[in-house]
Amino acid sequence: MGIHKYFQSLSDLEGIYRCPGVFKYQEHSVASHSFKVATIVQFLATVESADGQEVDWKTLYEKAINHDYSELFTGDIKTPVKYALPKLRELFSQVEGSMTHEYLDKEFPSQFRKVYEERFKEGKDQSLEGRILAVADKIDLLYEAFGEIQKGNPESLFFQIYKEALSSILQFRDLASVRYFIHVILKEMISEEISSHTRIRSITKALLQSKESETARKK
Amino acid sequence: MGIHKYFQSLSDLEGIYRCPGVFKYQEHSVASHSFKVATIVQFLATVESADGQEVDWKTLYEKAINHDYSELFTGDIKTPVKYALPKLRELFSQVEGSMTHEYLDKEFPSQFRKVYEERFKEGKDQSLEGRILAVADKIDLLYEAFGEIQKGNPESLFFQIYKEALSSILQFRDLASVRYFIHVILKEMISEEISSHTRIRSITKALLQSKESETARKK
Amino acid sequence: MGIHKYFQSLSDLEGIYRCPGVFKYQEHSVASHSFKVATIVQFLATVESADGQEVDWKTLYEKAINHDYSELFTGDIKTPVKYALPKLRELFSQVEGSMTHEYLDKEFPSQFRKVYEERFKEGKDQSLEGRILAVADKIDLLYEAFGEIQKGNPESLFFQIYKEALSSILQFRDLASVRYFIHVILKEMISEEISSHTRIRSITKALLQSKESETARKK
Amino acid sequence: MGIHKYFQSLSDLEGIYRCPGVFKYQEHSVASHSFKVATIVQFLATVESADGQEVDWKTLYEKAINHDYSELFTGDIKTPVKYALPKLRELFSQVEGSMTHEYLDKEFPSQFRKVYEERFKEGKDQSLEGRILAVADKIDLLYEAFGEIQKGNPESLFFQIYKEALSSILQFRDLASVRYFIHVILKEMISEEISSHTRIRSITKALLQSKESETARKK
Amino acid sequence: MGIHKYFQSLSDLEGIYRCPGVFKYQEHSVASHSFKVATIVQFLATVESADGQEVDWKTLYEKAINHDYSELFTGDIKTPVKYALPKLRELFSQVEGSMTHEYLDKEFPSQFRKVYEERFKEGKDQSLEGRILAVADKIDLLYEAFGEIQKGNPESLFFQIYKEALSSILQFRDLASVRYFIHVILKEMISEEISSHTRIRSITKALLQSKESETARKK
Amino acid sequence: MGIHKYFQSLSDLEGIYRCPGVFKYQEHSVASHSFKVATIVQFLATVESADGQEVDWKTLYEKAINHDYSELFTGDIKTPVKYALPKLRELFSQVEGSMTHEYLDKEFPSQFRKVYEERFKEGKDQSLEGRILAVADKIDLLYEAFGEIQKGNPESLFFQIYKEALSSILQFRDLASVRYFIHVILKEMISEEISSHTRIRSITKALLQSKESETARKK
Repeated sequence: MGIHKYFQSLSDLEGIYRCPGVFKYQEHSVASHSFKVATIVQFLATVESADGQEVDWKTLYEKAINHDYSELFTGDIKTPVKYALPKLRELFSQVEGSMTHEYLDKEFPSQFRKVYEERFKEGKDQSLEGRILAVADKIDLLYEAFGEIQKGNPESLFFQIYKEALSSILQFRDLASVRYFIHVILKEMISEEISSHTRIRSITKALLQSKESETARKK
Repeated sequence: MGIHKYFQSLSDLEGIYRCPGVFKYQEHSVASHSFKVATIVQFLATVESADGQEVDWKTLYEKAINHDYSELFTGDIKTPVKYALPKLRELFSQVEGSMTHEYLDKEFPSQFRKVYEERFKEGKDQSLEGRILAVADKIDLLYEAFGEIQKGNPESLFFQIYKEALSSILQFRDLASVRYFIHVILKEMISEEISSHTRIRSITKALLQSKESETARKK
Repeated sequence: MGIHKYFQSLSDLEGIYRCPGVFKYQEHSVASHSFKVATIVQFLATVESADGQEVDWKTLYEKAINHDYSELFTGDIKTPVKYALPKLRELFSQVEGSMTHEYLDKEFPSQFRKVYEERFKEGKDQSLEGRILAVADKIDLLYEAFGEIQKGNPESLFFQIYKEALSSILQFRDLASVRYFIHVILKEMISEEISSHTRIRSITKALLQSKESETARKK
Repeated sequence: MGIHKYFQSLSDLEGIYRCPGVFKYQEHSVASHSFKVATIVQFLATVESADGQEVDWKTLYEKAINHDYSELFTGDIKTPVKYALPKLRELFSQVEGSMTHEYLDKEFPSQFRKVYEERFKEGKDQSLEGRILAVADKIDLLYEAFGEIQKGNPESLFFQIYKEALSSILQFRDLASVRYFIHVILKEMISEEISSHTRIRSITKALLQSKESETARKK
Repeated sequence: MGIHKYFQSLSDLEGIYRCPGVFKYQEHSVASHSFKVATIVQFLATVESADGQEVDWKTLYEKAINHDYSELFTGDIKTPVKYALPKLRELFSQVEGSMTHEYLDKEFPSQFRKVYEERFKEGKDQSLEGRILAVADKIDLLYEAFGEIQKGNPESLFFQIYKEALSSILQFRDLASVRYFIHVILKEMISEEISSHTRIRSITKALLQSKESETARKK
Repeated sequence: MGIHKYFQSLSDLEGIYRCPGVFKYQEHSVASHSFKVATIVQFLATVESADGQEVDWKTLYEKAINHDYSELFTGDIKTPVKYALPKLRELFSQVEGSMTHEYLDKEFPSQFRKVYEERFKEGKDQSLEGRILAVADKIDLLYEAFGEIQKGNPESLFFQIYKEALSSILQFRDLASVRYFIHVILKEMISEEISSHTRIRSITKALLQSKESETARKK
């Protein structure tokens, strides 16, 4: 009934995997995702700041770190559910809210309750920080889908997720950081060299030939 | 858009793990759980039948095999949620229902739609078969919790689950099979010898001594 | 020494993996396989029944649920062994039989011994139910091989298994359910869209273009 | 060659496990650890702030998020090495530094190089933020060791790590947050109820008795 | 059809796990086991050599490295089977022999066939090297069982395996290396300090007290 | 403080994975790698021997079995580090050396210290056995990279490793065994049939047609 339980619970987020029930080559936990989102917001806000925006960094990082803590109470609902039923999603948010409230009342020492209530609120509001969080959350999802597609995952769901995530990101094109993402990062992503099996043969042949001519020269 | 997708989706149930977000020594998938429940109802109904009850075996097995198929659409919501909020659970049932309906409309050839709609309905009704399913579902949950406790899992949640599951089973004491479970099976379970570290020393010593005296005798 | 041990042993089937010793992207346990076979016989028998056949549903489901329980005693012998040496396979069946017998004598309360001896017998006999089981067992194997091939598994063994499994299924073409499998399900399977890496580029470009023209229109 | 590679590399931190080569019941990746450290510094700094200290929150969170990024280049060296040879550790820090430098030169667009050079520097300096990071890093290590000990890990290394981590934390007793940790959190941790096997019997008996007396009363 | 396939097959031994179908905290592959047996024979033969025995080292190491290669064709049959039915075990040996023969005929270049036929033969003969192999194989099995017991595995099977393995080792007491094992190594094993949960409290208290008195002294 | 700890430590090598921090379809432990290297040197030395070279087999096998034991103290440093900084690698070798020395002093009974000091020394010297070990170590690395490329791993690192490993092997072309590797084994490797998705369709069609014509013939 205190911070010990809170610290201990962080480890449980390492055991909640995103997108359960679809075959994946690589699993991603909610804990890992939160770390990646925090790192992505760091970059996006750096671009915003360079573009002249005033960033509230403390709020930004706290939004990123805490944005999925409530999945501890609910787990990660299946992606198809999320995309098929916006109503359920909203309702889920409400339940998450009330469970978080209950958790704070039961587990948190009273002197920290207020500040954590603020921190555990839904972070994706209309502020600059809320919008950066929304973008970063989708960028990490896009990378998860891209990673599966690149590894040859035949599930068409990952194409859907890729599309849905990119589509959400594009809605924030008024942000300088999103424009940087589209014009620079995304370009790098889709032009990535595709590892092909034939490449191994050419490497092999090239090496063998260079060594052979080297040997010939020595004679 | 057909039975191929349905058959393929069965494999996704192998990737949905029960009780996500709590440390476990052994994971159990929804597919494995369904197999175990089917095997448990087989035994319980055998007892009921010996007790003179009329069992509708076809219905019983179909209830067991299909009872968690809808988790494909929703995932396995976290146990604490299930136990903390009966309202959410109910709501989830509704969502599962409507998603199942939608799935049948979209994926199933029309000639099979009706029979599968029946099969995918909530199975735990007031019929004998529905009650046997309810008991078997809790017996498997009890075994999952028992397995973790026996292996030394320090999470107190498993004691809660054990207690909750046993408590639910006891509500069906009017069934002969539940009485058999309580008076015979549960008794075996709780009297199980506890592997202790000291045992290895006594085995070692006993073996060494028997060999030594054997050697002595030979001289 | 009783049903407790029997219930507990079900969990061990979750730890026996099929086709050991070959690289797989996705593992399948004997427990999961049994669940899938039970679900597949349910469908095949539905087709048979619609075709006018009399199905003994109780027997059918019990055959499916129990058909690999004896692997608990023996493990899953390696697929190449199974296919290379029919004699060994037969012999293995015998050993499985005698071990099952011994297990029943030692572990099962006498009042259930007879009914379980019947249930643990080799299920793939010449009855309609035995033949449906034989087909369903091969359909699940076909899906396992298909899943690996689709994910890019370079082991040629999976092509062999695919071929062998399909070949076995085709021997039951006199069954209406097998004809449905060939003419409808298999067709869906082999015409499945192949996820290609290029697809991600086209999705990306299409989205970007539609957004750009949308932006242009707004000006 | 750009931020795409940087974002993609975050996922590699999900595949570097801490304390390699010792048996663990639960693995922790560098990515998960970074998330947990960020969450722990959030709490510690909240205590410091309540105590009247001026916290540079932006710097604090960036220290936490980035503090192990360089393990991407070097992996997580084995704990015994870390503790046995302080010289090697220092040398490793140097190598990490030069590799990080090289990485920034090669991969990062020039406009972000300077700010990230600052961010990727060793964070555990003598500032309040650097000291909070040092404490949080050890608190998470303490929890990792505690988790293994609690689950029954027989490796004595985890006792060593527990001791070493706690000892390091105690060196920062002048911080209000460390005093809170010692007097409140640590107390909760060591008084945690130990799950014992006997507890399951008492739960079982209590439930059975309450139900029996309930039944008796009804008659 | 050649050495390439042979080299590639070594990796398959990494995917065959010993004792399938029993819950284990730690899995051991046939590849890992072979490495450990090779390392154990190295030690045992060092003792024999010091005792004045003539060791044929080449033969010894080849026996160790190759002794389970044939499991590639057959998998690791379940331990209970091995112990319950000596007849089956013998028969399995025969099958392994004939499959190995067939494999050599089909896969191996003729110039190496004879030497590998010798290497793939059952290694546990009556020679000194064969007996050392038999002992080392059981020592590794003993360590596998000990590791599970020490971690708290409740399966009584591991006590059986421990007992059976130790019993087999003791039959070779005429070997100097086995006497060394019994009088020195086994003694260390069973006197190993048992990690207890209470230890963490005493470490904590001791550290806190030493720090407190240190603080008091400074004043 | 004796051979028991040494035997027990072998199991820790099963938990150190090679190339940490890069996505892999298949993990390889240091224990498995050591087994494979021992098996590969066995073959290479067989070729050398047939070529008329005098092989010191005892030394050869001990070099292979022990060559990575020191990773127990240091873990497997990340491949990019190894390849980027030869200086660090050398320094690491020194540290490994001194840690091994310390380990022998602390853990090993004095009568075995000298022989194990010899065994734990860097094995890749200029002797025939040292050179065979160097080649075998790279051959196994080549197979690891080939395995990932063949399974579709998009990480370009594996092409680098493949190239670097092959390049190292080619430097030993004066060995008859390396020439055999290049002219026979490598040829088999790169001409390996690539499993393609289309193959499954042709198998399916061929089988269906053969069965249909068979059916036609029967009429």
